[in-house]
Amino acid sequence: MKLIRYGNVGEEKPGLEFEGKWYDMSHLVREYDEDFFAAGGLDKLKGEFDPKLAKEVDQNTRLGAPVHRPGKIICIGLNYRKHAEESGMDVPKEPVVFFKATSSIVGPNDAIEIPKNSKKTDWEVELAVVIGKRANYISEEEAMDYVAGYCLHNDVSEREFQIERGGQWVKGKSCDTFAPLGPYLVTKDEIKDPNNLNLWLTVNGKKVQDGNTNDFIFNVQHVISYLSQFMSLMPGDVISTGTPEGVGFGFKPPVYLKGGDVVELGIEGLGSSRQEVKNYEG
Amino acid sequence: MKLIRYGNVGEEKPGLEFEGKWYDMSHLVREYDEDFFAAGGLDKLKGEFDPKLAKEVDQNTRLGAPVHRPGKIICIGLNYRKHAEESGMDVPKEPVVFFKATSSIVGPNDAIEIPKNSKKTDWEVELAVVIGKRANYISEEEAMDYVAGYCLHNDVSEREFQIERGGQWVKGKSCDTFAPLGPYLVTKDEIKDPNNLNLWLTVNGKKVQDGNTNDFIFNVQHVISYLSQFMSLMPGDVISTGTPEGVGFGFKPPVYLKGGDVVELGIEGLGSSRQEVKNYEG
Repeated sequence: MKLIRYGNVGEEKPGLEFEGKWYDMSHLVREYDEDFFAAGGLDKLKGEFDPKLAKEVDQNTRLGAPVHRPGKIICIGLNYRKHAEESGMDVPKEPVVFFKATSSIVGPNDAIEIPKNSKKTDWEVELAVVIGKRANYISEEEAMDYVAGYCLHNDVSEREFQIERGGQWVKGKSCDTFAPLGPYLVTKDEIKDPNNLNLWLTVNGKKVQDGNTNDFIFNVQHVISYLSQFMSLMPGDVISTGTPEGVGFGFKPPVYLKGGDVVELGIEGLGSSRQEVKNYEG
Repeated sequence: MKLIRYGNVGEEKPGLEFEGKWYDMSHLVREYDEDFFAAGGLDKLKGEFDPKLAKEVDQNTRLGAPVHRPGKIICIGLNYRKHAEESGMDVPKEPVVFFKATSSIVGPNDAIEIPKNSKKTDWEVELAVVIGKRANYISEEEAMDYVAGYCLHNDVSEREFQIERGGQWVKGKSCDTFAPLGPYLVTKDEIKDPNNLNLWLTVNGKKVQDGNTNDFIFNVQHVISYLSQFMSLMPGDVISTGTPEGVGFGFKPPVYLKGGDVVELGIEGLGSSRQEVKNYEG
């Protein structure tokens, strides 16, 4: 299934994309949130969805992020060999873990706003995993049992805030609009192997990232198992698995986003998204 | 007002402590969560609370954390001069910001569970600020307008996971049970100056931390204003302002928690909490 959330900001309703059409699901479920996944909502949807009974939704409607208010967004840094190289950092011995504020989440085609006083806003196409049930101390072999599905994520990053302002990376990862998610959450049964998916990103039509998740240093199963040794992974939690080479920070000289730019990105099987870049307007 | 949440894990109800007694508030409000603070719930409670009409609650009841499922826990590292020294780190030029998973939250008197494979679980008494309304790009002068109140927080930390396992600190800060919050959320009108509060922590009755928030490098107003330059602070978000000297990591040789230990902590005006330490039981 392909889960969407549609409607104006703060008024999104749950829906499905099915055979190219969008359907409202708000007669069956309240939200795609922690409670939904914890209560087996995916099975309920699968059992009860009937395109003949569901209301069709106009595809000119705005899409929100396909998950509502996840408990956390956990990100893995430097998880592609070539990206670690372009960042001038060593290939990590263990996954590099950081968080992104959930208040940074926006819909897949919403604008990216460059923060006030920012000069180094950058892009990162990423495969995000959505957790389906609570996971603690699980093995790699068990990991896939805890996955609800996948979605496309642009892990927008401010490099000065992240790296040059002292302390931890979170300051450069958590600005509003820095987590466009979607278009949809694709349930895991539709993705044969998350560790072998093409992913790409263009800026103003020029391809700057063009990778495959088979370049992962730590694959999806390893990442989930690893994180579950340190914290509870909760239903609806989002894990973003890192970005391949080709971020603006890695260009010589570096290239960053500016007002008017258009970013488009996609992952095989997970659709594509498009964000216009806006300058901060106070 | 002193807001409490009482009841079994996952079944907590909102309440108030008033003149030494506990009262149920579930007839007036649903939860102390993001929606509650955003909708002006504090004013509603203040206007409608009447001890003659409210049901009294037995004080043998368990307390939960006084805020339900905050969007984020933002922590400030090395924010007391003497703690920065004991950690062997430079006094930071800007606040050191990191996140803690909200899945680590427990009630003020719940057990701390030492994670599997942990050898270096440590304590940190901290003043936590709870945000009352959404804040973006606010000044220090405006900061207090965005505060709902304060609560006591033990920012439990695993030093090996935090510092020796590579990457960012979040791995050592986010384990389950690592954020005992409460006993209550004290509204800001009851705290004259958050930058001048005594705070202390004992392990097995021996005082190990004994400080005052007047040793802050960055005071509450500065921290709130600073964070709001990087991300939206949302109603209900928790900001933990750092710990004074006296953590186990700073002892020579270091001292860490073990099963059977008892940690007690408190802050002037914000009450005290008590956690028994348990070993991981798989």
